[in-house]
Amino acid sequence: MPDYQAILDEIRDEVRPLLLQGRVADYIPRLAGVPREKFGMAVVTLDGGLYQTGDAVESFSIQSISKVYTLTLALQSIGDELWQRVGREPSGNAFNSLVQLELENGLPRNPFINAGALVVADVVLATRKDPRAQLLATIRGCSGNPDIRDDPEVALSEKANGFRNAALANFIRSFGNLEHAIDDVLDFYFYQCSLAMSCVDLARGFLFLANQGRCPWRGDRVLSPDQAKRINALMLTCGTYDAAGDFAYHVGIPGKSGVGGGIVGVIPNQLAVAVWSPALNAKGNSLAGSAALERFTAKTGLSIF
Amino acid sequence: MPDYQAILDEIRDEVRPLLLQGRVADYIPRLAGVPREKFGMAVVTLDGGLYQTGDAVESFSIQSISKVYTLTLALQSIGDELWQRVGREPSGNAFNSLVQLELENGLPRNPFINAGALVVADVVLATRKDPRAQLLATIRGCSGNPDIRDDPEVALSEKANGFRNAALANFIRSFGNLEHAIDDVLDFYFYQCSLAMSCVDLARGFLFLANQGRCPWRGDRVLSPDQAKRINALMLTCGTYDAAGDFAYHVGIPGKSGVGGGIVGVIPNQLAVAVWSPALNAKGNSLAGSAALERFTAKTGLSIF
Amino acid sequence: MPDYQAILDEIRDEVRPLLLQGRVADYIPRLAGVPREKFGMAVVTLDGGLYQTGDAVESFSIQSISKVYTLTLALQSIGDELWQRVGREPSGNAFNSLVQLELENGLPRNPFINAGALVVADVVLATRKDPRAQLLATIRGCSGNPDIRDDPEVALSEKANGFRNAALANFIRSFGNLEHAIDDVLDFYFYQCSLAMSCVDLARGFLFLANQGRCPWRGDRVLSPDQAKRINALMLTCGTYDAAGDFAYHVGIPGKSGVGGGIVGVIPNQLAVAVWSPALNAKGNSLAGSAALERFTAKTGLSIF
Amino acid sequence: MPDYQAILDEIRDEVRPLLLQGRVADYIPRLAGVPREKFGMAVVTLDGGLYQTGDAVESFSIQSISKVYTLTLALQSIGDELWQRVGREPSGNAFNSLVQLELENGLPRNPFINAGALVVADVVLATRKDPRAQLLATIRGCSGNPDIRDDPEVALSEKANGFRNAALANFIRSFGNLEHAIDDVLDFYFYQCSLAMSCVDLARGFLFLANQGRCPWRGDRVLSPDQAKRINALMLTCGTYDAAGDFAYHVGIPGKSGVGGGIVGVIPNQLAVAVWSPALNAKGNSLAGSAALERFTAKTGLSIF
Repeated sequence: MPDYQAILDEIRDEVRPLLLQGRVADYIPRLAGVPREKFGMAVVTLDGGLYQTGDAVESFSIQSISKVYTLTLALQSIGDELWQRVGREPSGNAFNSLVQLELENGLPRNPFINAGALVVADVVLATRKDPRAQLLATIRGCSGNPDIRDDPEVALSEKANGFRNAALANFIRSFGNLEHAIDDVLDFYFYQCSLAMSCVDLARGFLFLANQGRCPWRGDRVLSPDQAKRINALMLTCGTYDAAGDFAYHVGIPGKSGVGGGIVGVIPNQLAVAVWSPALNAKGNSLAGSAALERFTAKTGLSIF
Repeated sequence: MPDYQAILDEIRDEVRPLLLQGRVADYIPRLAGVPREKFGMAVVTLDGGLYQTGDAVESFSIQSISKVYTLTLALQSIGDELWQRVGREPSGNAFNSLVQLELENGLPRNPFINAGALVVADVVLATRKDPRAQLLATIRGCSGNPDIRDDPEVALSEKANGFRNAALANFIRSFGNLEHAIDDVLDFYFYQCSLAMSCVDLARGFLFLANQGRCPWRGDRVLSPDQAKRINALMLTCGTYDAAGDFAYHVGIPGKSGVGGGIVGVIPNQLAVAVWSPALNAKGNSLAGSAALERFTAKTGLSIF
Repeated sequence: MPDYQAILDEIRDEVRPLLLQGRVADYIPRLAGVPREKFGMAVVTLDGGLYQTGDAVESFSIQSISKVYTLTLALQSIGDELWQRVGREPSGNAFNSLVQLELENGLPRNPFINAGALVVADVVLATRKDPRAQLLATIRGCSGNPDIRDDPEVALSEKANGFRNAALANFIRSFGNLEHAIDDVLDFYFYQCSLAMSCVDLARGFLFLANQGRCPWRGDRVLSPDQAKRINALMLTCGTYDAAGDFAYHVGIPGKSGVGGGIVGVIPNQLAVAVWSPALNAKGNSLAGSAALERFTAKTGLSIF
Repeated sequence: MPDYQAILDEIRDEVRPLLLQGRVADYIPRLAGVPREKFGMAVVTLDGGLYQTGDAVESFSIQSISKVYTLTLALQSIGDELWQRVGREPSGNAFNSLVQLELENGLPRNPFINAGALVVADVVLATRKDPRAQLLATIRGCSGNPDIRDDPEVALSEKANGFRNAALANFIRSFGNLEHAIDDVLDFYFYQCSLAMSCVDLARGFLFLANQGRCPWRGDRVLSPDQAKRINALMLTCGTYDAAGDFAYHVGIPGKSGVGGGIVGVIPNQLAVAVWSPALNAKGNSLAGSAALERFTAKTGLSIF
């Protein structure tokens, strides 16, 4: 077994110069205010090992990483029916593009672009009694951290600046692929994006995807083995926006990123790894975080390929 | 001088079979309820002649034809400054497409596609004290009909079904090219679309564009000669959505159509002509109306080319 | 009647500073070698008046202006059948774009974008015994200048650099919308682009379009009145690439430009006007030439609108 | 270890009804003539096991599967420099689309779309003395079959119908991203597509990708471990055209398909599997072949996720 702790510490030192590069998201004040020096990383293995370095227990805005959890809820509720309303192909476009949506009549390319996540949110709203509570319960349960919560200020700011997402929601609705009121869908979406978690939370919270859909320490099933595999496949092909090919090429494992600077990766049957660094590269993924994960798979020799 | 009355009556008889073709707009109940048998046509000449046939004094929803009037108000207020915020090129796409808007960073191609009309509406809201009253006063003044009014039921229905326009407005706003609240812009836009006029109103009401910007019977200036010419140029290149080339080719005069089935044409220094027939062709222009205008220019020998 | 001579001389003086702006086409040596100081302009009226200024009798490469003549030949041969193979709508894209062609299955938007001109060339090849001789005879006849000829060096250079046009031809062929061998179509196309004419030649040579399709001094018919009008409509909506809307707005008459720096305009029932200045604006039209034509219509008060 | 032989035989029986569905490629006679009843499948494991069923030793046209070998040659020659000229992202469009190429200035999205394969071919032409001989030697070496050869009739037919590829090559050249003469690039490309191999050949011939880049029985290195992994990542994200997401989702392993009906899959550190069935689904991948691979991973429980 690799010496995970040593590797994480090495990586932390190596990526330090990169923390000065890239650009912290500044479209809302809460994100803009996060110091670019922050860096945390955590690994949780299936056999219960926990390794961490840097600011690994500090919470940050998970943003798009939440799309994995709402997808989980939607698959729990309606299974493969979901794919009638959202595709499974990489988009080849920016995460918030409307072009493809128009050419393809309101059917979003995949559940991880914003358009797809809005449709998934609509499904969650339709199939869950108290969608926010159930989402939170799922995340707390998977992470083993009952203190995880949303940041209402983030959600409010998102909404106040959410013209592009409002455009997407209205556009999808014009094709008949949203059922709920635009504002309800957007509010739930901004809620999920505003959830705050740490690297340790995220690594723990994604471990069920490395474990055939079952939470390793509680032993209960979150998803079927097939569903877990398929979310991994989706993360690999679509999890890092239009840099998914590059991420697969350089990092070589399924991963999901968020504009708050977090990225979570899954190595099936082994571990989950989460990293956080606020400054983003041109594609909207954490710059130092991407580099850290590339080093992690290089140093450990772990890869799905 | 052609015998306009005889020509209009001939056309009415000739296009009758076409009234059964095409498709009446049905996205809102008020439009869907208009009988497809309706057909009216009116010509008003600069020297005061008025000729009409069929249902020429029956009011209908002018819809996009209203964009010529809001453009008039915007040019009166800020002149060529307007072109900082909206282009003057044909779009080559459907009237409510978002694709081009994305590729061109929120600058609508021209003031007659919906995106452009929303920006024009935003300008009118910014520069007029009581935008609705001033728009109505302008239209009533140009048409010489103080009874022209809006149809609030139409505006309400438009709003209830206006997801595509809401998408456009949010999208433009995300690029910073709208200043007012989305709902204010949309409400004004739906108001202008809900105005009801007859063929006689429209022919009279567009005559200033055939008269170098001056209302021929009141003698007052609505626009400068240059501005009037330029609106005519815009109508020729962009007035009938992505059928503008075909319209120029077959009809050969500047024209503006609406989804309510109206089309108005202008022959500079001579006359304005309006036609109404509710059923639309595949491009969203009145099917029998287009045919009637083509026959009108063929029979009269009038053309700008 | 305006004092055309005085107006042309005024314009020549006024646009002189503009000759230093813009960029001379440099994709082939022959065009790159033309001095940017060149400026010529000529007006020919239906009643036989000829007015000229500057380098108005110097020949230059007419390039895309030739598309009007090949369109003329194609309409003479197969009339409206042509529109089965090429559209009549503005493209909303650059003149040599492949995007729209792909979305619309190989049917070019109009005969003035390169794709459309290649289809027109294919029609001319299919319907004429000696296509080059007949094209040349038509141009010489319309212009009254038996000395007009092609510049083989230009054609050779075009071919050597014609990868984009070869891409277009192969692409159209892949949709089945070209019948002749790619090289034959391209060779004819490069031949037509290599024809050299002066402003006086061009103004004379386009006069039949201002005269209902009939050459005013020879009296013979080149096209039917309807066909002439429709070519004018096409020039207005599509004659200056994706600046057609702007050209219609500012100049207000049908016109066709070429990358050699020439632009010809037609004022129906009055005159044809040609201008030449090698440096191009960002849209690929002669920068000083566009300004000169705008001044010409402003000073003379001539416009179709 | 799963009973591979039993599983292959089961699959052969199960997919038999599917052989009647889909459409055999018919753009060239040689492909059109292949009976749709053909079905073969072969598995080769790292420890030397060989399992086969149906027409597993019958040769067919490998077509786009050859792109993996030319990519291998290019990476051997210039390594990561290749990525200056071709991307690594899924295209989100059909394999022979020109749209993205235009928007991205002639840089193909990845080496497996035709545009990318043409650039790779150009690299091979530039870096190899006898490109055809070296490609053939590599394939024969990896497959352990010295009788593998090209089918000149296929190459000739491809060329005669290769307008779309000629369009792509000319288009890329117009952006300066091809160095060799168009015809040389196309001839080499059609040559590689015309190579004929069996399922057994292909399974053996891809085994080095499951073995960290080393041929298991000869022991020699074809690529570095990193390069092998990265080709696997590329196959997963881009190997089956715009169905790559779906393939990853349902099959869950890296794979590369060809229009001849072949698909090869790689399970790192375990095996390579090849399947052949000529009729294609709407995305251009073997219909029964895709189903067979999905069953194979389901029945064996093998997956990278």
